[in-house]
Amino acid sequence: MFRKIDDLKELALQKGRKRLTIAVAEDNNILGAVMVAKNLGVIAPIFIGDKEIIKRISLEEDFIIGESEIVNEPDHEKACMLAAQIVSEGKADILMKGLIQTGTFLKSILHKEFNLLTGNLLSHFAIFESPYYHKLFALSDAAMNIAPTLDEKTSITKNAIEIMRFLGVEVPKVAIITAVETVNPKMLATVDAHELKLKAENGEFGSCFVDGPLALDNAISIEAAKHKGINSLVAGDADILIAPDIQSGNILYKSLNFLGNARCAAIIAGAKIPVVLTSRADSEESKFLSILLGVLCSR
Amino acid sequence: MFRKIDDLKELALQKGRKRLTIAVAEDNNILGAVMVAKNLGVIAPIFIGDKEIIKRISLEEDFIIGESEIVNEPDHEKACMLAAQIVSEGKADILMKGLIQTGTFLKSILHKEFNLLTGNLLSHFAIFESPYYHKLFALSDAAMNIAPTLDEKTSITKNAIEIMRFLGVEVPKVAIITAVETVNPKMLATVDAHELKLKAENGEFGSCFVDGPLALDNAISIEAAKHKGINSLVAGDADILIAPDIQSGNILYKSLNFLGNARCAAIIAGAKIPVVLTSRADSEESKFLSILLGVLCSR
Repeated sequence: MFRKIDDLKELALQKGRKRLTIAVAEDNNILGAVMVAKNLGVIAPIFIGDKEIIKRISLEEDFIIGESEIVNEPDHEKACMLAAQIVSEGKADILMKGLIQTGTFLKSILHKEFNLLTGNLLSHFAIFESPYYHKLFALSDAAMNIAPTLDEKTSITKNAIEIMRFLGVEVPKVAIITAVETVNPKMLATVDAHELKLKAENGEFGSCFVDGPLALDNAISIEAAKHKGINSLVAGDADILIAPDIQSGNILYKSLNFLGNARCAAIIAGAKIPVVLTSRADSEESKFLSILLGVLCSR
Repeated sequence: MFRKIDDLKELALQKGRKRLTIAVAEDNNILGAVMVAKNLGVIAPIFIGDKEIIKRISLEEDFIIGESEIVNEPDHEKACMLAAQIVSEGKADILMKGLIQTGTFLKSILHKEFNLLTGNLLSHFAIFESPYYHKLFALSDAAMNIAPTLDEKTSITKNAIEIMRFLGVEVPKVAIITAVETVNPKMLATVDAHELKLKAENGEFGSCFVDGPLALDNAISIEAAKHKGINSLVAGDADILIAPDIQSGNILYKSLNFLGNARCAAIIAGAKIPVVLTSRADSEESKFLSILLGVLCSR
């Protein structure tokens, strides 16, 4: 059972060593995070990027990186394509974004030739341990889908539920969050939230509880929910928060990390292989935890 | 100088006692917050609502409320209209929302007859003390304007700057936050953020620094900003965060309060009188601090 974010370590160790390839790896934080995971014994890395810079950083930081672990490709776009090719050929189990814009990195995954897509929407999934909540909770989508339609939100919700089940939460409680807890036709997000709730009632998401629209406080505080007269199994006990769009998702993600003392692991869901995609400003620890989440979600 | 949220107490005491009228006052938390402010000597209350319930609560909670302080009006809409009328007639200095939907409450302020508008847009302004930030910072708009246009964001920004100056921050640093730190035509919020920055450079906001688009981490963490190569006076040191819309603003507001251990005071800016509008799920302390902010902003 996955109760604390540190449980990722033990669970990843049980899973056994996976091969991880990193596109544009020449960054102290990224190399540091990957080395911690390598030393833990859960991954074998393939660093793709500017070999000279990678070697210089490893000298400075005392990282022991073998020649065979580095593939020299200083061009950022080419490094991304090469990493995608390596996983598509089955030579790596997990793909990780290095010091590169998300858009450039994702283009390589979307490349049809590599056949990395399942037909599902790709979505960003983050799991948080907050000192102010009684259990781990997930947030999606904080980084990929700009203004998801109802169909896209349906995919985002499905991806998130799938990962939560994978982490041992068999019947996740899903809160579709918006600014308010009532349906308001002037706020499309609240209408979509209600539709997602109906889809769940019709069995579209399998065994789970979905409620929405819920304001964030109603989703994670039973006192706040009671004060508003909300009676819901999800209220105050959500396992998954679905954000209305990338602005609110990203701002919540950053708020938890930078103004909430939370610890976090994140992954891209919906591809054939787990994709580790952390923000350049995320801490080394967050990058390490995300690699562990990738290990857990790999085959 | 206003450095900690508790400084509101001393500043409000210096300001002298103000008359506060509360629409739909029959709520334990609201009555409690108003009584603390009354006992501190900074306000004289006029409670409008269901007199029987108000008296029952005051008996239960040992609040000493005089007969003359209560105006009996059990109908919620009428209570809101009456409260607006009282301030419009100059019989109160500050207006406060009680246990009533925000929309219903605001209708009474917008009523032309009461002449409470200045021509400015009304906007929600919140000030936070977070254990994870080195100073107080403001957030707008978390509760009023659903999907503000560029013009409306301009008003929101002006209102926020005005209050911050009032609180002693003469040259506020304003971060226009979005999901990313680069302009992306697919995200209108980033385009608007850039426009607001240009408006500031053209002097439209007076003496201040405005930067955007900035992701939240870049606005409040100098390390995060450096890691992304952002060079800006605002980055890592923002006094004011302007949210792209109500979804992201509200979710950030709730995140800080419920998952960030922050303390908060909030007010509606842009009317002739300060309007105290807290969420029903806000703590009694937050309501009390908001009353103090109202006192500070009153004439």
